[in-house]
This record gives sequence, structure tokens and C-alpha cells, in this order.
Amino acid sequence: MADEDFVVTPWEVRGKVDYEKLVEKFGTQRITSDLLQRWEKHAPLHPMLRRGVFYSHRDFDWALEMYEKGNRFYLYTGRGPSGHTHIGHMMPWMFTRHMQEVFKVKLYFQLTDDEKFVFNDSLTREQVREYAYENALDLIALGFEPHNTKIFLDTEYIHTLYPIAIEVAKRVTFSTAKAVFGFENSNNIGEIFYTSMQAVPAFLGSVREGKNVPCVIPCAIDQDPHFRVARDVAEQAGYYKPAMFYCKMLPSLSGGDKMSSSAPGSAIYTVDTQKEARKKIMNAFTGGCATVQEQREKGANPEVCAVFAYFFNIFEEDGARLAELDQQCRTGKILCGECKGRLAERVLAFLKTHQERREKAKDRLDEYMLRD
Amino acid sequence: MADEDFVVTPWEVRGKVDYEKLVEKFGTQRITSDLLQRWEKHAPLHPMLRRGVFYSHRDFDWALEMYEKGNRFYLYTGRGPSGHTHIGHMMPWMFTRHMQEVFKVKLYFQLTDDEKFVFNDSLTREQVREYAYENALDLIALGFEPHNTKIFLDTEYIHTLYPIAIEVAKRVTFSTAKAVFGFENSNNIGEIFYTSMQAVPAFLGSVREGKNVPCVIPCAIDQDPHFRVARDVAEQAGYYKPAMFYCKMLPSLSGGDKMSSSAPGSAIYTVDTQKEARKKIMNAFTGGCATVQEQREKGANPEVCAVFAYFFNIFEEDGARLAELDQQCRTGKILCGECKGRLAERVLAFLKTHQERREKAKDRLDEYMLRD
Repeated sequence: MADEDFVVTPWEVRGKVDYEKLVEKFGTQRITSDLLQRWEKHAPLHPMLRRGVFYSHRDFDWALEMYEKGNRFYLYTGRGPSGHTHIGHMMPWMFTRHMQEVFKVKLYFQLTDDEKFVFNDSLTREQVREYAYENALDLIALGFEPHNTKIFLDTEYIHTLYPIAIEVAKRVTFSTAKAVFGFENSNNIGEIFYTSMQAVPAFLGSVREGKNVPCVIPCAIDQDPHFRVARDVAEQAGYYKPAMFYCKMLPSLSGGDKMSSSAPGSAIYTVDTQKEARKKIMNAFTGGCATVQEQREKGANPEVCAVFAYFFNIFEEDGARLAELDQQCRTGKILCGECKGRLAERVLAFLKTHQERREKAKDRLDEYMLRD
Repeated sequence: MADEDFVVTPWEVRGKVDYEKLVEKFGTQRITSDLLQRWEKHAPLHPMLRRGVFYSHRDFDWALEMYEKGNRFYLYTGRGPSGHTHIGHMMPWMFTRHMQEVFKVKLYFQLTDDEKFVFNDSLTREQVREYAYENALDLIALGFEPHNTKIFLDTEYIHTLYPIAIEVAKRVTFSTAKAVFGFENSNNIGEIFYTSMQAVPAFLGSVREGKNVPCVIPCAIDQDPHFRVARDVAEQAGYYKPAMFYCKMLPSLSGGDKMSSSAPGSAIYTVDTQKEARKKIMNAFTGGCATVQEQREKGANPEVCAVFAYFFNIFEEDGARLAELDQQCRTGKILCGECKGRLAERVLAFLKTHQERREKAKDRLDEYMLRD
């Protein structure tokens, strides 16, 4: 944090993230109005696009051009199963689901149980495996199409993944891994190797189809270091570079920039009870004032408010209503308690439906798990 | 090579190897006469034991003690399939075969196709895979018992190996790998991870049986760095440390310390024709003099002679006859040409039988390959 006030790596988010600076630092492209216009030929703009939740990319224009020429891409995203799924994890999945629907494309979903095992001293292989299957239920509950969705755990699908992973690993020096991820001598050799595994699904579609197929990876921008490596290796290994489609991270309910398993109040998990979820929302960090009177007079600040962020990113898709809420907040017409109450209503309804779908998903795992 | 005149690593042997110094450098134990006496309770001493071809170990006395208490060990050895098998590769396998017979134990034989792929720029995955199956034929041709011998390629048996490999990898820092193998920043991350894979079969017997089983690894001493790592990790991971049983390396036919694929005349391959093998032997480096007359007068030196080394290590099991040959050589009673002729006779007969068995092995691969 020497010359910047924030750190973003695949394993750590610290400080107040400046997403514009991140684009420069990582060297990604901005999603421009031109690109959005091209998108609109295929579908109306999803709120996450209109609002810049998805805001950066690498070569997505190329993937869209390929698509328009009849060379359909596939999607790849994933999850490191270090715990239960929270709503922040699902934000890019919801958009990925939308992309699957719009473009009628296949999704490979990687559960990196090996990653979470080697990076976490306190997790056993059995624990990450259990979380992986729990996380898979959440993905399925979001309505992904079974015929177009292939979920796998690294350790279970390793027979297909490992030969591709060593093709990647052979082309990545320790120098590169060190520069990209900041590894030190104390990192273990599983951590050092791991990026090879995260690269694999970017090429898996091509390997399985026996010809090069473009790949688009929608995910949070903190994963960019992995995919810089994957993109560097791609052409030498005879594949297309994967295109990237990056979103910001859902802020912590308790303030700060990313939800964290070490602070349970900072995120709403899909396994939370209605009571737990409501309590977290009612305790959320807002942009309100110290007293009701002050807030009625001066208004509050939605820009720093976790509750507003939940509406903005996910829970208020209607642009006019969101603008109205913003206005009411800034002018002190709505107080934080009421606003939290409204969010709780939305979130609890979402959770109720999601948990029902999640329960049904338990019988549908076989339709989704990639075994061959 | 600053303070020593030789280098021995799993990937390089350079200079004149001083095997006694190696024991000190690696910190292994010598095979003592006490240990040999304990061995003799089970079987007469094999020539490779009597002559100190197998000369060093780690904890083999412990494994023997366990065995004598009814806790049978299993054997593990292997091959990096970077090319065809030569007689030097088979030297430890021949002894391993003897151990299987004496102790009636199981052998796991690892073909490290992943290793040879990540460590060799010029080898493709398909090439190492083909060599691996060629090498497997040579193992089978040596007469290993099918019910007690399980052969596997790393990439093909990865489903079982990988979960154990990440247990190892999690416990090995880059510092350790760097210190043990001399890795630099230019090494690729597949090379850095690889030692985790070579450690796995040391624990595989325990994993498959669901209880701790001692493991004995007969191999050339150049592999010790890998097994130092495996032994360091073993107890933390809940397994016994593997016991090691180390041999020297069969010298190059053309002089020097290890046979090398880059100098085809330095080794006799199991796929060589009778003509090729004879030619290599007739061109071998010996301890002879410049002229016949000089040799008749002064005698030759069997200690530096590759032809004598072949007799000593493998092709003259009879101690009295070997001593006689030694005597004849030193006193100039036998000249190098005649001696080479005698060796050629032995080697060509061996090759003929081996190649017939190797041919038959092609139909027997299924009996040996570990798939479950």
C-alpha cells in the first residue's frame, strides 16, 4: 500500500478500491458506450451493464465479433469453495446466467477445491469438497440451463484438467508467477502451481470440441492476475486468448470493499435464516447521519452506503425507482431504518425463493456435474 | 562444481561421482555388514548387495523390523519416460524384482510422464506417453508378478494421485524446493510443483489400504532429493516416512558416470538390435593400454573400465569368475578385445531373451496397469 491506498489480488482485497485506477494498473479495457451499443443488437442492457457494475474487459469486442460471424463463444466462471456462498459471490453468476440466456451459450463452472485447500491452512480436503457441492447448489438455483452448464471440482475432474494444466505450467516461469501474484519464498509449491489449474477452463472448450472455440470469462476484476497468465500462455499453447468481462465487487454490508468470511456480518449467505439475514441488514453500514434530525435536514449519502449498494448492484433493477430512492436519501426524505426495511423485504424474498430452488437443486446435481 | 568435482541431482549427473562423499552430502546411511546379516535371514545376498551396488539407505532397518513383526512393506520405484529404456535404468528394477520375490511384496511403479514433459522443452505429451508404455514393457519383461505389480502413468492415474499431491505440496515451501533442487526464477511452475507428484506413491499404498503401510523405495541415489522432501512431509501428513534403498549408477559405456540419451553410444537400449549393441560394446571405453605389447606387460585397469563395470554390476553374477576376470585383466592375460567379446555374448543373449519377453508383454499390459 506504499503508493496506493488499496490492494486487490485474487486472495486479498484491502483498502478502498479505486476501480478506475485498477483498470490502469491491470491494463484492462473499459466497457465503452460503443461496446454497449453493439451489445444492444443482441439484448437490452442488463442493469449491471447500464450501471457499470460490469465495467471493464479484455477482448470482449473480439469475442462478440466472432460470435456475430457464427463462431459462438462459451462462458467460464467459477468459485473457490472456502465457505458457503454469499450474495456477493453470486453477483457475477447472475450476470453470467443472463449472458447464457442472451447468447445461448455453454458455461463451464470451475470449483477450485485444490486452490482453497493449498491456500488455507485451516481447511481440510473434505471441508473444501463439501463447500464445493454447497456452492454448486447455489449456481444451479440461479436457473442455469442444465444442457448448457457443466460444473466440476478440480480434484474430481483432474483427469481431463491436469494434462492441460501442465501444458500451461510448462510455459509459466517462477519469475512470472512471482511478478503477477507477489509470491515469496514462504509460499508453498501448490500455491505456485495453482494458476495453471485456473487457466485450464479457458481452453477446456477447445480441447473438448477438438477445435479452437472462443471463451468469455465473466468474473470480478480481482481475478485478472490469473487470466493475464492464461492469456500470455494461450497462443503459445495453440489456443485463443480468453476474453474477459469484469465486474466490481459487492461492498461489505458493514462498510469496506469486499465481503469477508472472517466477518460474518459483512455478507448475507445463501444459507442464512430470514432472521439472520434481517439482522445483518438492520445492522448494515449506511451513509446516514448521527441523529434523525440532522438527517432530515442534511440528507444522507448513498455513495458510501452498503444498503444503497445492495439496491444498486442487485436488488432494484428499475432505474427510475433507484433514482427516486437516491433522491429521497440525499434529501432526507427517507431514513436509514426504513430503507433497510425495504432492502430486507427484497433480500428475504429472494432468499426464500433461492433456498427453495437450492433444496430442489440437490436432486439435480447429476444433470450439471461434468464427469466425462 | 566449486568445491567438488561432481554434481548429482535428479536431472543431472556431471563429473566423476564419489559415492562415499554423496552419502555424507545427502546424509544417507551406509548399508552396513550388520544390515546385510539381517537381510541374510530372509535370502542369500544378491550380487548387487555383496558388491555394494546397492550401498546406502534411509531407515531400511526400520522397514525390515516392521516386516519381521508382520507389518509387510510395499515397494515403489519408477521411471521418467524421456526415451527408451537402457540397461542402466533396469539395474535397480532387476534388484527390485529380486526384492519382490524375496519378501513377497507389492510394487507400485510410477511413470512420470508429467515430469518429463515439464522438464523437457523438446518433448510433447504424446511422446512421453508413448515412451512411458515402451518403458512399461521393459519392466514387465523382467518378470514382475502381475498380481503384485501396479504400473501407472502420472497423467492417467491423476485422479487418485492429485489429491495426495496437494497434501504434499501444501507442506513444501518454495524455499525448501529451491534449497533441495537448486531451482531458480527461470524454472517453470510445473517443475517446481513436480516433486509433490513423485512423493505420492510413497503414501499411495497407505491411502489405498486405508491404514499406514511401510514403503521401501529402491532406486539410484540421484533421486534422494525428491525423497528428502517426501520424508519431511510424511509425518505431518499422517504417513510413515518411506524407507530408501539406494544404488550407484551404471557407468557410461563410453566412459564417464551415467549413461545419457544425448550420447547414444554410452548405453545399450532394450530396443537396440544385436548389431547395434555389439558395436557399442566393441567401441566401449576400457582400462586397457595403448598397445597390445604394453598391456601384455603391464596389465590393464578394471577399476576404470566400462566393460568390467558391466560384468561387475550385472553380467557376471558368479563372484569367483569375476575375481578371475579381474586378475586376468590386471596381469595382462586377457586383452580388451576378448573381454568385450565375452561381454557382448552375455549382453546379446540377455537382449534376445528380453526382447522376446518384451514382445509378449505387449499383450499383458492390462494385467499390470493400475486403473482403479
